[in-house]
Amino acid sequence: MEGKIAKLAIIGQGLIGSSITRAVYERRLVTTVTVTDVSDKVRKRVRELGLGHARVVDTAREAVRDADLVIACVPVGQIADVIKDIAPYLKEGAIVSDVGSVKASVVADIRPNLPEGAHLVPAHPLAGTEFSGPDAGMPRLFVKRWCILTPEEHCDADAVAKVKTFWEGLGSTVEVMSPERHDYVLAFTSHLPHMVAFSIFQTALRYEEMTEAEVIKFSAGGFRDFTRIASSNPTMWRDIFLKNREPVLSVLKMFVGDLEHLAEAIENDDGDELLKMFSSSRITRRKVIEKEHISVQQDEDDKRPDVPLLRPYASDDW
Amino acid sequence: MEGKIAKLAIIGQGLIGSSITRAVYERRLVTTVTVTDVSDKVRKRVRELGLGHARVVDTAREAVRDADLVIACVPVGQIADVIKDIAPYLKEGAIVSDVGSVKASVVADIRPNLPEGAHLVPAHPLAGTEFSGPDAGMPRLFVKRWCILTPEEHCDADAVAKVKTFWEGLGSTVEVMSPERHDYVLAFTSHLPHMVAFSIFQTALRYEEMTEAEVIKFSAGGFRDFTRIASSNPTMWRDIFLKNREPVLSVLKMFVGDLEHLAEAIENDDGDELLKMFSSSRITRRKVIEKEHISVQQDEDDKRPDVPLLRPYASDDW
Repeated sequence: MEGKIAKLAIIGQGLIGSSITRAVYERRLVTTVTVTDVSDKVRKRVRELGLGHARVVDTAREAVRDADLVIACVPVGQIADVIKDIAPYLKEGAIVSDVGSVKASVVADIRPNLPEGAHLVPAHPLAGTEFSGPDAGMPRLFVKRWCILTPEEHCDADAVAKVKTFWEGLGSTVEVMSPERHDYVLAFTSHLPHMVAFSIFQTALRYEEMTEAEVIKFSAGGFRDFTRIASSNPTMWRDIFLKNREPVLSVLKMFVGDLEHLAEAIENDDGDELLKMFSSSRITRRKVIEKEHISVQQDEDDKRPDVPLLRPYASDDW
Repeated sequence: MEGKIAKLAIIGQGLIGSSITRAVYERRLVTTVTVTDVSDKVRKRVRELGLGHARVVDTAREAVRDADLVIACVPVGQIADVIKDIAPYLKEGAIVSDVGSVKASVVADIRPNLPEGAHLVPAHPLAGTEFSGPDAGMPRLFVKRWCILTPEEHCDADAVAKVKTFWEGLGSTVEVMSPERHDYVLAFTSHLPHMVAFSIFQTALRYEEMTEAEVIKFSAGGFRDFTRIASSNPTMWRDIFLKNREPVLSVLKMFVGDLEHLAEAIENDDGDELLKMFSSSRITRRKVIEKEHISVQQDEDDKRPDVPLLRPYASDDW
C-alpha cells in the first residue's frame, strides 16, 4: 500500500521493541513482523508470549531479510554494531531506523556502514516506563506521545513520510528536526533533569548532617520529586550521557552557573535578586504546567496514569 | 483539661493558619479560637467564611489575650515582629509557637523579645499546597503529615507535651529535634530541591539552543518533574533561603561539587565511574520510593490526592 510499511523487522525486544511488536499487531499496521533479540532468554520469552503473532528468528541478519523497515530497538551504545552486522542483508531501498535517545553521534556511527540503497530515518519516541524487558511492553505506550524523527537533509522524502505515517499509526505525534537540534533540546528537557536527579542522591549519601532514615522520612519536602527520574536504568543513562557529551556538558555548565548565581545572591543577602530570579521564570513554568494539565486530561481519557500537576497536594511548601 | 489547650490564638489566616482554624473546629480540639490577620481583606474574608466559628479580632494584641497557646502563622521574615508586638499582652505561662520552615534563626530572633513566663515551642508542619490565603485552607491538611517541634533544651516539658498533643490532635505525627538539626535536615530534603527547581527555570530561559515552545512541548522528559516544586511562592522561598543561609549554602555547595564530579566523569568518558555513581544510590532511592508508596496508600485511604511513584508511566527514560 502506498506510504505504508508491509514488512517490518524489529531488532531488540526490550520495553520499546516489544511495545512496537504489540502495537503493530493491535493496530494492524503492517503485513508481517519479524523480530529478534541478541538474548536467547528474551527470544524464548517473546515466543512464549506469542507477541503480536510475530515471527521470532535467531539472528538480526535473518530478521531483516526482505524487510521494508528495520527498527533497531537496542541501547544507544549498540546501534552501530547492529547496523554493521545487518548491512549486507538489507533489501535494496530498505528503511533503517532506531529508537535511541541520542541522535547526532549515533547517525555518525551508523552512516559509514549503511549500504547506498538504504534510507536512514532515525527516530526517538519520547515514551518509556521504569520497567524493562519484553514483559514490560505495552501496545499503547506511544499513544499521544511525541516521536522525533531526525533524517539527514538529503534523505529520501518518501522514506521519511513512510516512517512518519508508521509512528502516527502507533498513536504518536511526529516532529521532524535535525539530529543536532534534537540532542540540544533533549540535553535540557531530559538529560539535565536526569543528571540532577542522579547527583542529588550522591549528595544525600555524603550529607553527614542527616541520617539515611531522615532522608527517607522527610523526602516529601521536594526531594521525592527527584526519585521518579532517578529510578531510571543506570546503564542506559551512562550511554546517553557519554553519547551526547557536548550538549550535555554545555547545559550542565550553564545550570551549575545558575546555581552558583543563586548561592551568591543568598550569600550576599540579596533578597531582590532572589525574587527577580524566582519571578522571571514564572511564565514558562505556568505554561509547562498548563501543557501538562492538557496532557494529563488526554491521559485520563486514555485510561493511562500520569502525574497530575494542577491539583491540591499536601506535602510541599515547607 | 490536663495536657490540652483550652484557649487558642492564631495570628495569620493564610493557608496554614486558616487550615488550623478549620481543623480545631472540625476536631473539637480547643474551647475557644481567636484569630486575626494583619490584612483587613483577609480578616473580612475569614468573617464571611465563618471559619470554624472563630472569633475574629483586629489586632494580634487583642487575639493573644488570655490565650494558652498562640501560633504565629506568618511568613518566616515577620515572626520576630509579631512576637515583639504581642509580648506584653501574653498571659503568664502562655505557650508561643509558629509554623515557619526555618527554625534556628527564627528562635534567635524571637527569644530576646519573649517575656520570662512564656514558653517557646516552635513547630513546623510539613504540609502545604501550591495555593495560599484563607480560602485555600483545608481542615485535613495536616493529617498523616509530619510536624517537627524544635523546643530549646531548657524548655518546659509540659509545654512541649501540650503542643505535641495539639498537633497529634490535628492528625500529624510529631517529631522533636533541635532547631539546628531541623534546619540541616530541611536544607537537604526541601530547600535544595527548591533551589534546583528554581534554578533550572533560569537555565531554560538562558538556553539559546531551544525555544520556549520546545521547552514546553518536550517538558515531559524529566523537566516537568521540577515544575511542581518550582510553582511554590517566590517570596516565601526568598525568606527561607535567607533565614537558613548557612545550611542551605553548605548543602548547595556539596551538590554543585557532585554535579561537577559527574561532568568530569562524562568529560573523561569514564563510564565505570558513571555507573558506580548511579548504582551506589539505588538503595536509598528504592527506600524513598517504598516509603512514598506507603504514604500514597495512606493517602488513598484518606481520599487525598498525592503523586504516585510506583506505577507505570509513559513519559520518562527518553
